[in-house]
Amino acid sequence: MQITPSAVCDAVKTIRQKSPLIHNITNYVVMNYTANALLALGASPVMAHAEEEMEDMVNISGALVINIGTLSDHWIKAMFRAANEAGKRNIPVILDPVGAGATKYRTRITREFLETVPPTVIRGNASEILAILQDDAKTKGVDSTVSSSAAIRDAHRINLTYGSVVCISGEVDYIISSDHLIKVMNGHQMMSMVTGMGCTASALCGAFAAVNTSVTTAVSEAMSVMGMAGELAVTSATGPGSLQYRFLDALFTLSHEDIERLLKIEVLSWKDYIS
Amino acid sequence: MQITPSAVCDAVKTIRQKSPLIHNITNYVVMNYTANALLALGASPVMAHAEEEMEDMVNISGALVINIGTLSDHWIKAMFRAANEAGKRNIPVILDPVGAGATKYRTRITREFLETVPPTVIRGNASEILAILQDDAKTKGVDSTVSSSAAIRDAHRINLTYGSVVCISGEVDYIISSDHLIKVMNGHQMMSMVTGMGCTASALCGAFAAVNTSVTTAVSEAMSVMGMAGELAVTSATGPGSLQYRFLDALFTLSHEDIERLLKIEVLSWKDYIS
Amino acid sequence: MQITPSAVCDAVKTIRQKSPLIHNITNYVVMNYTANALLALGASPVMAHAEEEMEDMVNISGALVINIGTLSDHWIKAMFRAANEAGKRNIPVILDPVGAGATKYRTRITREFLETVPPTVIRGNASEILAILQDDAKTKGVDSTVSSSAAIRDAHRINLTYGSVVCISGEVDYIISSDHLIKVMNGHQMMSMVTGMGCTASALCGAFAAVNTSVTTAVSEAMSVMGMAGELAVTSATGPGSLQYRFLDALFTLSHEDIERLLKIEVLSWKDYIS
Repeated sequence: MQITPSAVCDAVKTIRQKSPLIHNITNYVVMNYTANALLALGASPVMAHAEEEMEDMVNISGALVINIGTLSDHWIKAMFRAANEAGKRNIPVILDPVGAGATKYRTRITREFLETVPPTVIRGNASEILAILQDDAKTKGVDSTVSSSAAIRDAHRINLTYGSVVCISGEVDYIISSDHLIKVMNGHQMMSMVTGMGCTASALCGAFAAVNTSVTTAVSEAMSVMGMAGELAVTSATGPGSLQYRFLDALFTLSHEDIERLLKIEVLSWKDYIS
Repeated sequence: MQITPSAVCDAVKTIRQKSPLIHNITNYVVMNYTANALLALGASPVMAHAEEEMEDMVNISGALVINIGTLSDHWIKAMFRAANEAGKRNIPVILDPVGAGATKYRTRITREFLETVPPTVIRGNASEILAILQDDAKTKGVDSTVSSSAAIRDAHRINLTYGSVVCISGEVDYIISSDHLIKVMNGHQMMSMVTGMGCTASALCGAFAAVNTSVTTAVSEAMSVMGMAGELAVTSATGPGSLQYRFLDALFTLSHEDIERLLKIEVLSWKDYIS
Repeated sequence: MQITPSAVCDAVKTIRQKSPLIHNITNYVVMNYTANALLALGASPVMAHAEEEMEDMVNISGALVINIGTLSDHWIKAMFRAANEAGKRNIPVILDPVGAGATKYRTRITREFLETVPPTVIRGNASEILAILQDDAKTKGVDSTVSSSAAIRDAHRINLTYGSVVCISGEVDYIISSDHLIKVMNGHQMMSMVTGMGCTASALCGAFAAVNTSVTTAVSEAMSVMGMAGELAVTSATGPGSLQYRFLDALFTLSHEDIERLLKIEVLSWKDYIS
């Protein structure tokens, strides 16, 4: 397994050409930014959460992204219904367990997902990933209190138990499958000062998974594109406000040359990693 | 019937002076951008969807804008209640049937609106307008799969049946009344990469309808102002991120000179068009 | 009582260092911007409204901000439940009665808050503050129809009756406690053309209250920081679109020098004011 600049570039091109429809059931805070990021990348976002239309919407989509950032009970039903339908149709499902560990409610719903409709991908920060298996994991609201590497072992256990590819985002992003551990070292600290960057990453995982049969590769490409666009945006940003729009512009203009120059990714076999 | 740069300019000035209150029951994705666009134009937005306050809010408003982009059942009741009240008070209602055709749910609700509280204006892309009368119309989520001209005949039939002025937006925007077909050729392709530009157009239709007794003229002016502000924004944008804020700045600064220079509008009588 | 540039600067530094978690139950329109403003200031925002998690979320938060801008019934229960919990734990609660006076529904809920769980701080425009005690107060949707000074007497009565520190925002912001009247003269007219600036001010009040035991001082500091960041942003903005992101950048970069140069605040004892 290898992830080259050319492969990343090809994936971006495919998204721009095919413009896959990405169905998002996400939180109120980030809906606008998520939709704009998917559009800037070249995908076609749709946000919908009415139970009555879940099957219809999932069936025309290339991926389903579920994000529990502003959860409430009548949304949960729609989320499960959509995830069920996606499962039947072999449509990849990305789960973003925002704030798992911060409240018992979010932890419980996250675990219910894994037990009943295990997603294709789980992407969260280290605190959120740790909260899946550990009752005493600590999180500070929706921000992590530990570095992403702290959750690698748990991520691998989650993968072995539920089959989901796990992405732990942080200063370094880790993508964990049964066989591989991929480290993405792109990105910039200032991105954490823009709300919903993690949620955007999950949506981008959906876009890449919609055009790539290897889920692990798709998630790794998505996370590296997030990071590279962030690095490009930071160079001309004067703060998190300007970073926000420049990030969208960077997703839109991201070129083969940018990717050649910036991509920092490392693919390890899980065996090599643990030895 | 004629729509001159001076007339468009006067309408903009009137909005800036009177700052009409525009009541929006719209989707979560675009609420912020819609509110900011109305403010930048000079109008005064309010977003409210609680059934308990629909009559109170409609009664102090100059127009009501209803958008089904992230529909769910308890919002529908408020939408109908508000539309009913607006009807009684002769307050113009703009309906934006986002995603009609994408799911049976959205198509059904759109048709129920037309049957029970026909709006003053319907504004949608071609796929959405086609879905109103045709069961097999195709749409890709919330984006159109056909060019705007493909829906002109249906739009005219909708107008004759329900009385609504119909606006089909796309590369060329068509505004259809019983007697006229107006073509607005302003705008720029990159605008379709910013989420909610269509929804913003609907909200602007509300603002213009609030200060103009001719609905057809108001909608035509609104669509041309959208397009011209987009063209101004694109000249200095480096992608859809910067386009987003520059569009708001352009709405705010749009001048008589800009309108003189940019306005591209054509008014046809329906008779001339079909012959 | 005195509010010096150094004190304001120290408060900002403390927020940047401690990054207090601010729990927001706010309206759909401003959630994204509010979260981004809190992040740009250095605080850590969380948005959550499910009844099931209110106690858990309040208990890890430094302040609770409640905003009724897009109210509906099942949110109200969560708001009261969160406010109750915050009261028990001595966590400051900021209430933003958006649109009180515009509809009977909003006025009623605002009054119920004051009667049952009086907030630590109420921040609103003059129309909203007047609507609390007067049935015939007029408001235009969510914008005020009168200048902020018109509500000073009412604000003082509210403080004496319910104990809440009252902030009336407008061209001049007034902060009213039982003993003091503080005038903040920072800010710029163009800020009223960006949606949710008032809501952002309320959220910032939460961040300052989370790190400062004097509520009156905290609110005064928050309002002055809002105003100064706005002034800095306006200098390079070409309209309300660019103002929006530049404001976030200014919150992020706001320095001791900026505060020294820009702070315009006046502390009066209530006795001196009325004589």
